[in-house]
Amino acid sequence: MTKRLAVLGCTGSIGRQTLSVVDAHPEEFTVTALSADKNTEALLPLIKKYRPKAVALRDERAAVRLKNELPRGVELLAGESASAEAAAHPDADAVVVAVLGMAALPSLLSAIRAKKHIALANKESIVCGGELVQSELKAHDQTIYPIDSEQSAIFQCLQGIAPGGVERLILTASGGAFRSWSLAEMSAATPEQALQHPNWDMGRKITIDSATLINKGLEVIEAHYLFGVPAERIGVLLHPQSIVHSLVETVDGSLLAQLSTPDMRLAIQYALTYPQRLPSRVTKLDLTATPLEFSKPDRARFPGLPLAYDALKAGGTAPTVYNASNEAAVELFFMRKLGFLDIARKVEAALAAIPNVSRPALEDIYEADRRAREFVMKGQ
Amino acid sequence: MTKRLAVLGCTGSIGRQTLSVVDAHPEEFTVTALSADKNTEALLPLIKKYRPKAVALRDERAAVRLKNELPRGVELLAGESASAEAAAHPDADAVVVAVLGMAALPSLLSAIRAKKHIALANKESIVCGGELVQSELKAHDQTIYPIDSEQSAIFQCLQGIAPGGVERLILTASGGAFRSWSLAEMSAATPEQALQHPNWDMGRKITIDSATLINKGLEVIEAHYLFGVPAERIGVLLHPQSIVHSLVETVDGSLLAQLSTPDMRLAIQYALTYPQRLPSRVTKLDLTATPLEFSKPDRARFPGLPLAYDALKAGGTAPTVYNASNEAAVELFFMRKLGFLDIARKVEAALAAIPNVSRPALEDIYEADRRAREFVMKGQ
Repeated sequence: MTKRLAVLGCTGSIGRQTLSVVDAHPEEFTVTALSADKNTEALLPLIKKYRPKAVALRDERAAVRLKNELPRGVELLAGESASAEAAAHPDADAVVVAVLGMAALPSLLSAIRAKKHIALANKESIVCGGELVQSELKAHDQTIYPIDSEQSAIFQCLQGIAPGGVERLILTASGGAFRSWSLAEMSAATPEQALQHPNWDMGRKITIDSATLINKGLEVIEAHYLFGVPAERIGVLLHPQSIVHSLVETVDGSLLAQLSTPDMRLAIQYALTYPQRLPSRVTKLDLTATPLEFSKPDRARFPGLPLAYDALKAGGTAPTVYNASNEAAVELFFMRKLGFLDIARKVEAALAAIPNVSRPALEDIYEADRRAREFVMKGQ
Repeated sequence: MTKRLAVLGCTGSIGRQTLSVVDAHPEEFTVTALSADKNTEALLPLIKKYRPKAVALRDERAAVRLKNELPRGVELLAGESASAEAAAHPDADAVVVAVLGMAALPSLLSAIRAKKHIALANKESIVCGGELVQSELKAHDQTIYPIDSEQSAIFQCLQGIAPGGVERLILTASGGAFRSWSLAEMSAATPEQALQHPNWDMGRKITIDSATLINKGLEVIEAHYLFGVPAERIGVLLHPQSIVHSLVETVDGSLLAQLSTPDMRLAIQYALTYPQRLPSRVTKLDLTATPLEFSKPDRARFPGLPLAYDALKAGGTAPTVYNASNEAAVELFFMRKLGFLDIARKVEAALAAIPNVSRPALEDIYEADRRAREFVMKGQ
């Protein structure tokens, strides 16, 4: 039987790669719903190709534009809650959450409540909504299958470990553009320099997060909420080759690691076919090509990383403040209103300044998000 | 409830390390039976310490010597089948087969038939008895938990992979003493030079096998019989650091790897506690200490490795001939009657000369073993 997918954020990079996984396995997957923000030009050909039952657009004007061109019988959902509605589509078995930013959170919650098989690519929803998502998962006896390559690596390694066997999670980080720069060089770094990512071709914002290691900080928080491991048992190692995507240490002193060429289709497909594995078009890894190196991240040069642990220990809305203040600071860095090292300083200041709300509801999370952005922006 | 162990070959290296695992977890393990070849001096203190119900000695004279010193109530088994009797001891839950050489085969078969939890350290029994062992395992619905570090690594990686998900097993090899020597240098190599193993402190014979890669050839055969993967889907990579103990490639292009410091207690303990993991005294791996390198083994310099694939494809008694001819040739190498590169030549000649017996019974295996040794020895 085919698995019927709702692909949320289908015009983005992960959304497109999800559809290429569908193309590779037409006998396994069909597309029931597609959602996008407002890019109707990219969406329309996908609608014609996959003939979903429903299409969701966040932007109402874009929905109006699309309406006349929609093939017969395709339901159109529009507005802020359109993607969350698509996530709960009664004909969808699985939901790929590849919406960008914190906007993915309502869709994720909707998919959990509708008891869908959830493949999650979005980082912010689990970082900011962590406690809320955990309690909803528990209430509905659901699991999240991660698409993020590091979380997928950990998830893959965890499969064969009996309860109580896990000692530590070790996330690997490429170290980004400045991994071998001095603190003085980093303080004068430009956005152009920070965008030179060695291994993955990613979006602009995440490439900066890779250079500050705040991306890894977000993943530490994500891993905590996904796998229920406390902060002090989640480590980070720099691994410039980005071949070992992460590791799990067991209580008896073993390390299990997942390795592959950097190709998101592997994690996407596994999140959808779990627990089975199917052939893929991913290029086989040649382990002889380059030595694998690991080193400890330098806290002085990457102060954004330890701040993630502080945010995680504080809990409540602190992870949201960590994420939102970073987003705002990265924006200012792109506008050349902040230096590279100021990004972490702004995050630290925001965490100190904004009161934490424990056990936050969705509105508390949005409010913390808004306040953190405002705090960083008005500091200029 | 404690697991009651029969430790076969208790005075050897793996036997002693098994007892140190017992010492580390007195609440988990007790010792029900101990077996040894003839070393009563080493055995007696162990008997006094662990107070087993039964003790087995292969050597009947040694048994006579031991008899008077045996504490009251300890049963004494003696002779060729003593170890196999200990393996089937009704009060033993698990059997650690750490007997040396092909002599372990009857004990392994005995443990299978008695439906014990089997932790297997011995390589020759599964290499030579492969087909026989497989059919006995099937008939008694039993599994072998491997102690060999490479097989344990594969076993650990396989735990989380659903049926049909495995593409390839990749065994790692240190490359032994001559991994960077030229063919000309290797042809003049002395036993002393071959005994300089870079990472593991092992016995003399296995250290030579490590230098010829015939040890890895034996492991290819072993992996085939343990995990049911055909020869063409078992690969070997040189990995001088001996940190990644082996890997499993999945059909979707992922590699799962097991890493640790080189310490057999990890594999011994996991084979005994499976599927659980317990804390151990194994030193935690520091991944930052050295880069991990991999390369393809050179068939010209290590001709003993491809011969293992030939033996495995031939099946029947060919793996026994591979093992026995190598053992005899290594003996001649120690006696300086053969050059280092002659070892593989002798194995190749023995495989060509000795008629293969398919679906061999135990006697066929012994006969092939005898003929292969004779073939190599009389060639001098």
